[in-house]
Amino acid sequence: MIPRRLLASWAAQTRALLKWLCLTAPVAALIGSACALFLWSLDRATQARFEHPTLLYALPLAGIAIVWVYGRFGGRADGGNNLIVDQIHEPGAGVPLRMAPLILAATVVTHLFGGSAGREGTAVQLGGSLASGFTRLAKLSPADTRLVLMAGVAAGFGAVFGTPVAGAIFALEVLSLGQVRYEALLPCLIAALVGDWTCHAWGIEHTAYIIAAGEGGFHLQGWLLAKVTLAAVIFGLGGLAFSEVSHSAAALVRRLCPQPLLRPVLGGLLLIAFVHILGTRDYLGLGVWSADPGAITLPGLFQAAPYHPFSWLWKALFTITTLATGFKGGEVTPLFFIGAALGHALAGVMDAPTDLLAGLGFVGLFAAAANTPLACTLMGIELFGAAHTPYIAVACFVAYAFSGHSGIYLSQRIGVPKA
Amino acid sequence: MIPRRLLASWAAQTRALLKWLCLTAPVAALIGSACALFLWSLDRATQARFEHPTLLYALPLAGIAIVWVYGRFGGRADGGNNLIVDQIHEPGAGVPLRMAPLILAATVVTHLFGGSAGREGTAVQLGGSLASGFTRLAKLSPADTRLVLMAGVAAGFGAVFGTPVAGAIFALEVLSLGQVRYEALLPCLIAALVGDWTCHAWGIEHTAYIIAAGEGGFHLQGWLLAKVTLAAVIFGLGGLAFSEVSHSAAALVRRLCPQPLLRPVLGGLLLIAFVHILGTRDYLGLGVWSADPGAITLPGLFQAAPYHPFSWLWKALFTITTLATGFKGGEVTPLFFIGAALGHALAGVMDAPTDLLAGLGFVGLFAAAANTPLACTLMGIELFGAAHTPYIAVACFVAYAFSGHSGIYLSQRIGVPKA
Repeated sequence: MIPRRLLASWAAQTRALLKWLCLTAPVAALIGSACALFLWSLDRATQARFEHPTLLYALPLAGIAIVWVYGRFGGRADGGNNLIVDQIHEPGAGVPLRMAPLILAATVVTHLFGGSAGREGTAVQLGGSLASGFTRLAKLSPADTRLVLMAGVAAGFGAVFGTPVAGAIFALEVLSLGQVRYEALLPCLIAALVGDWTCHAWGIEHTAYIIAAGEGGFHLQGWLLAKVTLAAVIFGLGGLAFSEVSHSAAALVRRLCPQPLLRPVLGGLLLIAFVHILGTRDYLGLGVWSADPGAITLPGLFQAAPYHPFSWLWKALFTITTLATGFKGGEVTPLFFIGAALGHALAGVMDAPTDLLAGLGFVGLFAAAANTPLACTLMGIELFGAAHTPYIAVACFVAYAFSGHSGIYLSQRIGVPKA
Repeated sequence: MIPRRLLASWAAQTRALLKWLCLTAPVAALIGSACALFLWSLDRATQARFEHPTLLYALPLAGIAIVWVYGRFGGRADGGNNLIVDQIHEPGAGVPLRMAPLILAATVVTHLFGGSAGREGTAVQLGGSLASGFTRLAKLSPADTRLVLMAGVAAGFGAVFGTPVAGAIFALEVLSLGQVRYEALLPCLIAALVGDWTCHAWGIEHTAYIIAAGEGGFHLQGWLLAKVTLAAVIFGLGGLAFSEVSHSAAALVRRLCPQPLLRPVLGGLLLIAFVHILGTRDYLGLGVWSADPGAITLPGLFQAAPYHPFSWLWKALFTITTLATGFKGGEVTPLFFIGAALGHALAGVMDAPTDLLAGLGFVGLFAAAANTPLACTLMGIELFGAAHTPYIAVACFVAYAFSGHSGIYLSQRIGVPKA
C-alpha cells in the first residue's frame, strides 16, 4: 500500500536521526560541561577581580603570559573562531584539541585581570575543538566532519547563553552570509539542546533580562515601530563600525608592535590609562554583573535611570583595545553591552521605552556584526519572550541589512550579497 | 574618516529600505484589508451554515457554480498557489488580478455550504494577485517583481493568521525546499507587518491558543522531550501522507470524472454521505469554532477531555475530498486541525500534556507538509509563546526531516535535498 520509495526514505531518515543522536549528543554533553566549567571559572575570576582591584595593574604581565603560551604551545589554535569556520568550509587538518584548554584558561585570565571580552568566542572554540577531536577519534568522513563541527559550534553557543534554538540557528547561519545550512538542521538542534541542557544540569544559571514595555502588543504602537526601525539602522551601522574598527585596530597594533609579546603590554597599559582617565572600572571584564551597586551593567542598561549617553562608546573602546592586543575571549557579550548601551542612549533621545530599545540593541548589534539575523531574532525571543517578536525581527533584519559585507568573523563567506 | 565605500553602501541600503517601504507597504495594506474582508466574510458564512443546516445539501450545486465560474472567467487563476510560486521563480505573464475576487468568493461559498478547507491558500492568492497587479501597474523589473510577489505572499500569510514574522519567513522559505531567500528579508518583513497591522486595524481578532504545560521550563523534562521527538516523527509522516494522498486523490478524481463540472457533485455527495455515516458535522468548514458547544474544534483539541482518537483521520478525509473535487480554500487550517488532533490522540497514548502535543502537531504537521520548518517554528512561538521554543523547534525540524521531498505546493523546487 505504501510505496517502497517512501519506506526507504523513512528508514533513511530514522537512521539519520539516530546517527546524529549518537554522533552529536555525547560530544555536546562534553561541550556543555566544558561551558559550565568555563562559566563557573569566569564567575570566580570576576569575583576575584572585584575583591582584589590591584590585579588590574598586572594586566600587561597577564597578557604577556597569554601571548607567550599561545606562541609556545598554541600552534594553529591561535586561529580561533576563524580556524573553525575554515575547517567547516573545507575540512582539513581539523581544529587542534589543545585549543579547548588554552582558550578556556586564556579567557579566564583575561577576565581575572580586567580585560574587556566576551564568552561566545570561547564557547565556539571549546565546541569546535572538542567536536574536531571527536571527529578524528571516530574517523568520520569529511562530510560528517563538517556537520559535527557545526554541531559543536551550536552546542557551545547554545550552552553559554542558555539559548539552544538560537545556538542551532547560529551554527547554520554564521558560515556564509545570506545562507542557512538546512543539511545540518538536526545535528545542530540536537547538539544545542544537549549542550544547553548539560550546562544547566551542572547548576549554571543565566542572567534574566526583563522587557516590560510593549506588553500590550505592537498593534497599537506604529510610532514606536518607526522609532525601532530608525534605531535598527543605527544598530546596523554600529555593528559595522565595531567590525571595521576591530580589524583596523588589530592591523594597526601589528604594525606598531612587530613583537607579539609587547602588544598586550600596550593594551594593558592603555586599559589602565582609560580606567584612570574615565575614573571608572565599569567597562572592564564581562559587564554582566558588578560588585559595585552603582556600576553600569548589562541588566542595568535596561533601566531608564541613571542615563548613560556614551557608555556604548567606552565599552567599544575597552573591548577593541583588549581583543586587538592579544587578550582572549569573545566579542559577543561586549557587543550585547554596546548594543544595549546604544539602545539605552537612543531611548533617551527618541523618547522610547528604555528596556525595549536596550533589548533590541542587545540582539540587533550582534545580528549586524555577525551577519546572523535569524539566529539573533530567535535569541531575542528566547531571552526576552515572544511578546516583542515583531520588534525583535525588525531590529535584527534591518540592522543586518545596514551592516555591509564585513563582520566580526573574517572566515565567513558571502553566500547571497546584501542588496 | 569614514571610507567612501561604506558611505556608498549605507546610501544604497537607505535607498533600498525606502524603496521597499514605498513598493510594499501600500500593496500590503491593500492585502491586509482584503484578508480582513475575507476573514469577516468567512465568519459570516460559518455563522450562516450553523443557522441553516440544510445548506449542506446544496454543496454539490455550490461546487458546480464554483467550477463553472472558474472555467468561464478564471483563466489562469485556477493555477492558485502554484501559479504564484511559479511566477516568483520565473516572472512571466504575472498572476491575473481576477484571482483575488474569485478565490475570495469561492472560498466563502465553499465554507457556506460546508466544504472542509482552509484560509492560507486564499490569503496567499489574495496577496499574490494584488501584488502582481501592482507590479504591472508600476512596470517593475523582473527582479523587483519577484520580490514584490514574495512580499504579497508574506502580507497575506501574516495577516490571515496574525503571525507577521512567521508570514515573512514563510514567504522566504516556501519557494525552494532547504533555502531561505535573504535577498527578500526586508520586503517580506515590511509587507507581513503592514498586512497584519491593517487586518487588525479593521477589527479582526485571531483565535488565542493556550499551552499551560511545560511552563516550568524544559530543562527538567528530558523524558517529555523524547516523547515530543517521537511525536514529531509521526507529524512528519502525517504531513507527508497528507500531501501524497491529496495529490493522488486529485489525480484519481480527474480520471474518474473527466467532466470538471461533475467533480464537485461527487465531492459534495461524498461529504454529505460522510456526515451521515459518522453522524457528525464537526469536520465541515474551518473547524476553528462551532455553534455546537459539544463539537470538536481546533481550540478544543488543546484540552485532554473528551478524548478524540481518530478526529485527525476524519478531518483529513473531509479536507482531501473537498479540495480534490474542485472546491476552493487553503490546506493549512485543516492541517492545523489534523496536526492538533493527531497531537491530542498521541498525548493520550504517550501520557504527555495534551495542550503541548496539540500545539506541536498544529505547527509540526504544517512544517512537514509545506517544508517550512523555520517559518513554523516562528509561528509556534507567535501563537503559543516563547516558553515552549525548544519543543516547537524539535517538532518542526524533526517533522520536516521526515516528510520527504513532496509537499502541498507542487511548484516548490528542491534547493537542498534532505539527508
